[in-house]
Amino acid sequence: MKPSMIISLLLVAFNLIVMTACNASERSGLILTKEGITKIQANLGKTPLFDTTLQRLKQEVDAEIAKGIDTPIPRDFSGGYTHQRHKANFFLLQKAGVLFQILEDEKYANYVRDMFFQYEAMYKELPLHPQTRSYARGKLFWQSLNDSNWLVYAAQAYDAIYEWLPAEERTTLERNLFRPFADHISIDSPQFFNRVHNHSTWGAAAVGMIGLVMQDEELIERALYGLKEDGLEIGAKDDDGGFLKVEGQGAGFFANLNEPFSPDGYYTEGPYYQRYAMYPFLVFAQALNNARPDLGVLEYKNGVLLKAVDVLLNLSDADGDFFPINDGQKGMSYHNDAVVTAVNIAYYYGNKDPRLLSIAQEQGRVLLDDTGYAVAAGIRDGLTKKFTKGSVNYSDGADGDEGGLGLIRYGDEDLTLLFKYSAQGLSHGHYDKLSFSLYGQGDEIMQDYGLARFVNIEQKGGGNYLPENKTWAKQTIAHNTLVQNKGSHFGGKYEIGSQHHSDLRFFDASNKNVQVISAREENAYPGTVMQRTMAVIKDDAFEKAFVLDLFKASAETKNQYDLPFYYFGQILKSNLDYKVPESLKPLGEKSGYQHLYLEAEGKVGANNTQFSWLDNGKFYTLTTVAEKGDEVQLARIGANDPAYNLRRDPAIIFKRAEAKETLFASIIEPHGSYTPVSESAVNSNSNIAELRVLQDDENYTAVSIKTVKGSTSIFIVSNKNIEALTTHNLDINGQAYSWSGPFHYFQSK
Amino acid sequence: MKPSMIISLLLVAFNLIVMTACNASERSGLILTKEGITKIQANLGKTPLFDTTLQRLKQEVDAEIAKGIDTPIPRDFSGGYTHQRHKANFFLLQKAGVLFQILEDEKYANYVRDMFFQYEAMYKELPLHPQTRSYARGKLFWQSLNDSNWLVYAAQAYDAIYEWLPAEERTTLERNLFRPFADHISIDSPQFFNRVHNHSTWGAAAVGMIGLVMQDEELIERALYGLKEDGLEIGAKDDDGGFLKVEGQGAGFFANLNEPFSPDGYYTEGPYYQRYAMYPFLVFAQALNNARPDLGVLEYKNGVLLKAVDVLLNLSDADGDFFPINDGQKGMSYHNDAVVTAVNIAYYYGNKDPRLLSIAQEQGRVLLDDTGYAVAAGIRDGLTKKFTKGSVNYSDGADGDEGGLGLIRYGDEDLTLLFKYSAQGLSHGHYDKLSFSLYGQGDEIMQDYGLARFVNIEQKGGGNYLPENKTWAKQTIAHNTLVQNKGSHFGGKYEIGSQHHSDLRFFDASNKNVQVISAREENAYPGTVMQRTMAVIKDDAFEKAFVLDLFKASAETKNQYDLPFYYFGQILKSNLDYKVPESLKPLGEKSGYQHLYLEAEGKVGANNTQFSWLDNGKFYTLTTVAEKGDEVQLARIGANDPAYNLRRDPAIIFKRAEAKETLFASIIEPHGSYTPVSESAVNSNSNIAELRVLQDDENYTAVSIKTVKGSTSIFIVSNKNIEALTTHNLDINGQAYSWSGPFHYFQSK
Repeated sequence: MKPSMIISLLLVAFNLIVMTACNASERSGLILTKEGITKIQANLGKTPLFDTTLQRLKQEVDAEIAKGIDTPIPRDFSGGYTHQRHKANFFLLQKAGVLFQILEDEKYANYVRDMFFQYEAMYKELPLHPQTRSYARGKLFWQSLNDSNWLVYAAQAYDAIYEWLPAEERTTLERNLFRPFADHISIDSPQFFNRVHNHSTWGAAAVGMIGLVMQDEELIERALYGLKEDGLEIGAKDDDGGFLKVEGQGAGFFANLNEPFSPDGYYTEGPYYQRYAMYPFLVFAQALNNARPDLGVLEYKNGVLLKAVDVLLNLSDADGDFFPINDGQKGMSYHNDAVVTAVNIAYYYGNKDPRLLSIAQEQGRVLLDDTGYAVAAGIRDGLTKKFTKGSVNYSDGADGDEGGLGLIRYGDEDLTLLFKYSAQGLSHGHYDKLSFSLYGQGDEIMQDYGLARFVNIEQKGGGNYLPENKTWAKQTIAHNTLVQNKGSHFGGKYEIGSQHHSDLRFFDASNKNVQVISAREENAYPGTVMQRTMAVIKDDAFEKAFVLDLFKASAETKNQYDLPFYYFGQILKSNLDYKVPESLKPLGEKSGYQHLYLEAEGKVGANNTQFSWLDNGKFYTLTTVAEKGDEVQLARIGANDPAYNLRRDPAIIFKRAEAKETLFASIIEPHGSYTPVSESAVNSNSNIAELRVLQDDENYTAVSIKTVKGSTSIFIVSNKNIEALTTHNLDINGQAYSWSGPFHYFQSK
Repeated sequence: MKPSMIISLLLVAFNLIVMTACNASERSGLILTKEGITKIQANLGKTPLFDTTLQRLKQEVDAEIAKGIDTPIPRDFSGGYTHQRHKANFFLLQKAGVLFQILEDEKYANYVRDMFFQYEAMYKELPLHPQTRSYARGKLFWQSLNDSNWLVYAAQAYDAIYEWLPAEERTTLERNLFRPFADHISIDSPQFFNRVHNHSTWGAAAVGMIGLVMQDEELIERALYGLKEDGLEIGAKDDDGGFLKVEGQGAGFFANLNEPFSPDGYYTEGPYYQRYAMYPFLVFAQALNNARPDLGVLEYKNGVLLKAVDVLLNLSDADGDFFPINDGQKGMSYHNDAVVTAVNIAYYYGNKDPRLLSIAQEQGRVLLDDTGYAVAAGIRDGLTKKFTKGSVNYSDGADGDEGGLGLIRYGDEDLTLLFKYSAQGLSHGHYDKLSFSLYGQGDEIMQDYGLARFVNIEQKGGGNYLPENKTWAKQTIAHNTLVQNKGSHFGGKYEIGSQHHSDLRFFDASNKNVQVISAREENAYPGTVMQRTMAVIKDDAFEKAFVLDLFKASAETKNQYDLPFYYFGQILKSNLDYKVPESLKPLGEKSGYQHLYLEAEGKVGANNTQFSWLDNGKFYTLTTVAEKGDEVQLARIGANDPAYNLRRDPAIIFKRAEAKETLFASIIEPHGSYTPVSESAVNSNSNIAELRVLQDDENYTAVSIKTVKGSTSIFIVSNKNIEALTTHNLDINGQAYSWSGPFHYFQSK
């Protein structure tokens, strides 16, 4: 043997030793830790929820293995076959990896390896995806976002078989697949990777997680702190109108953790996107926590990541459906896989909050890792407590000073008021300052429209945003808030809207029978200050809790105002003297009005308008204070919507013209019930005889609520001083009222 | 003591002896028998469903006893307070009576007596109810129907305390309350009592049951056979347009049992009314069976009453909701109290069908009598079997020769087709010959509108029928069937419609993968024969079963045809080149067209129109064969409906002008699924490449169904010979087809 050959062999041996040493000493496992695997294997068959999840996963993956691997040449938008197939593939990769780690059956490792090599063979020469719509095209998918999804899951699968895979195969995969893949979604796509946006969170997690598996410090750094050079101009925008680069903002995982989360854990895009972003945030955080505990990601910003899980769960109705504010698709709920991850990780790394176990039970499955095992064991051991969702106020903005979201709940979610006085919410935000939506258990009483998109349904614009998302769903008139002169807040302009936010006046849920939130918006219409105070009140004289809504506008000039309410169900009765037009025409030409048909129109006569309806077996009455000249319109969504992209839902719109200083005072009153099985109508009439404005000036707004039996309650809110301890004395029509704090409800005896 | 006095005393004593003897020897108990009570008391605490029902009842009645008795002076329509109160009262009377019988606690007997005496005090001088709308006004309620309800329940309560009550109190109640009450709803209201109608069934049961308790043979005879003299003219009508007297029809319980039930047990008014009528039918039958077993009521007409319970349960969707044909209110289901009665009685007096136990389990309660005890004991003893609802054809008409109703089910109610080729259905009937509705589990895929009424909701026309019931719900265009020249079947005239019925050609559910029904209507439009063949087909080349619909019209003159389909959900895609009008106008001026807005209109271009939508997480495509000149309209209910009495539901209408002989060939194809939680769209596209009419003449109609993968199946139906054993040979485009029976499906290989 020649000396050079000996040296070569020695070098090979040395390399192997180093590699093995590295593996042994540094590789603790990306997600599933070695200790975790040992524990899980020792407890198989003893932890019901874990065992059933494992069993279901095994069945699913076994069935797919039997069908064989397909990695088609990319072609379709979301909803199309190639998109759906590659999406299914990355989930399968991750799942097969987990099965290999737990069950140690090589067929799963082979499946992962084989699929990876099919991708490796294709990826080397793969051009950009043929669909050109995205501002950052991927290669497997039409947008880099989906490519990043792929890599986040693929990294976990790669980690699962890493030690099992021969070194040369690792080298091939890393050189031809993983490294170029990570570079494409970062270096080649700075407009995607270097933002503060849920897209970039996926990008960072993808690059970072594959970096952790590959032990590639450069990729890890890139993921944590962004690209140093991105060539992006301040103010550049993506195809949805969102900013790519904002002055002073960082990039990478930490910047995305810092910017969009408020100190309370509210994610500025809203719960639909928070759910979507939580997976990469948390799974990357889990991996970093295993590999780089020194970074302290879970403690970052006072533990905002784990706090955010609690916020996310709270931002749902009684069925677990997330409130669809901003561009949220209805029906997304905490049953989504991403939230299984969130709940399991929050349980394990947090304080083992037993309330999370009840959510996990509803979800009916756990992660097959250390965290999921802990959850399943907790449930098995009877630690579960109910996740009671209460009234809570969440600040928005990185420093918590950019408005927020108020949640008022009465009873066990019998009535839930969501009040939005937040910042814009990045590019997914809607122009609906001071808007609200209302829920009774899992039913929408007053809806937020959500988005105009059928996510992943190919027939509808490739599953992407539809034009009506911009022309309708984002517009102010599509929401339960005030519109001035038929134009949207901030002129519907993102550049302006994203500079502003509403401001909280006060939030007080200390008395469950009178919970109040009040906020102010000064920028939506320059020269106009809007202030809305909403109270959820349970008065002994009423069967159920009701919502009192006081919407005040103070303008420098006279304006026309529209205040819509998007109810559901069938109209039973009203005291409106309305006319029904012979043919239905749109309400306007722009700002969303072009999508509303006018179904009926009338002037108000009485002091109050009362409007009752029946929905889902419950009665509701909307009582509003009418002013001379007020008009009311009944409308329905669907005009100028030839492709039927919108739902044909109804609205009632209160109109007031020529007003400078004005107040819209209303009560939304749920009452009674009806079931078609017994055909019995209980308490089908409103309990309100009259709602009256007693005073409304710069200092106070006071209303009286008189019931049909004749008792009268008074609600007064201070329009100036909102100090908790200030004592107010007010004389109204010769009656003296005295109280402390920003508001008071004088309940009738 | 004077002799006269002695005689008097002797007479009193004799009377008492006779009375006691009667009670002892003849009174077995109206509903709860003495033996039953003994058995129930011995088993208290041992039969869970019985015990929980008893407990619930006790809580309810105890709470009402605590509140005190209110028998207000009658004033309101259904839905109003006095109506609701008297309605609650009669239920309470019956319930308190049962509690007294089982628990022997006198507080319940006292409650019944006290309430009876309040009624007695009021009834003596009570005028007719002040509301004048009914053709037969009651005294407690606005219609004698509701008074009859009261007496059916009150009779049971009276029976429960009969022996406990001092004889003189019985005499007072009978003289001042029960006898005049029974007379008012019969002798004073022959137009109500002496009909064949669900109203009269209640009347007969009321009079008969109080007669049984009072041992009043005259009342019993009146109940069983009607009034001998009624003074009604043949052809007179009630306020709903139904006939009061029809030539040759009898009256009373037996006539009502005989006429509206077909030998199969189908009740001609439909399941909504069958449910309503079943209670008086069965409870009176149960009472007669106890008191007068010689009458053999349960065996009458081959045991039609018990058979009818099975039919009623079968006429429901997977959630137990009754199909809302004719004037049926949606949401009424087998969870209704009347059906608890029906199921319990059918179980006890029938063959102890263990499938009924599964329905009772779903109902979650039983009758507190011999029958309910048997049901609860059966469930306790584990006898329950699933009530599987299959495909079945029910004849209509007293002799089973007046058309019928076909039910085709595939899978475990995954797809249920209801095909209506019945008789008119008395005054509650709709003008919708050969119409259908389609269900997928508990979801309506193609709806039957049901009625235009909010039963017992006071705000909506006093809870009574709304004008739109006649102008919309009864009209042909409101249903999934063919309209000629924009006019309803039979001109929408009850006198004509009630003389006719459609005729079954054949019904074949022997092969679960190809189930077919075909029927013919020759009178709806004089001079036109309509024939509809509907098949539910599961072809291996399709993911799910689909419906093939071949609607053929043969007329003497040229006509315009409209075929509407009332789908639900959001339109995804169509190959229609339609125009959306600038403003929405009604589709016509009468026959229901005045209630439809035209939303879009287009001419068909391709050979097929394809129209896809998404509803409740499932995809559907309607594929129809297009002929040159055909037009399609998208419409929505709600025009000329200023009071919002109608639901704003959508329809697609296929239009063909100038046709004499024509065929509408369509396929309704359910496919795939979508869930917003996973945002995954599975199989969202139709599997049909082309539906083609290969032949359509007086002998045969043949269509081919080509899938997107290129396989082709052929369906042929004979338009003449429908003998099961006949062999057919047909050459289509050079290809020879041969089969036996009225139809054949040649599945592609």
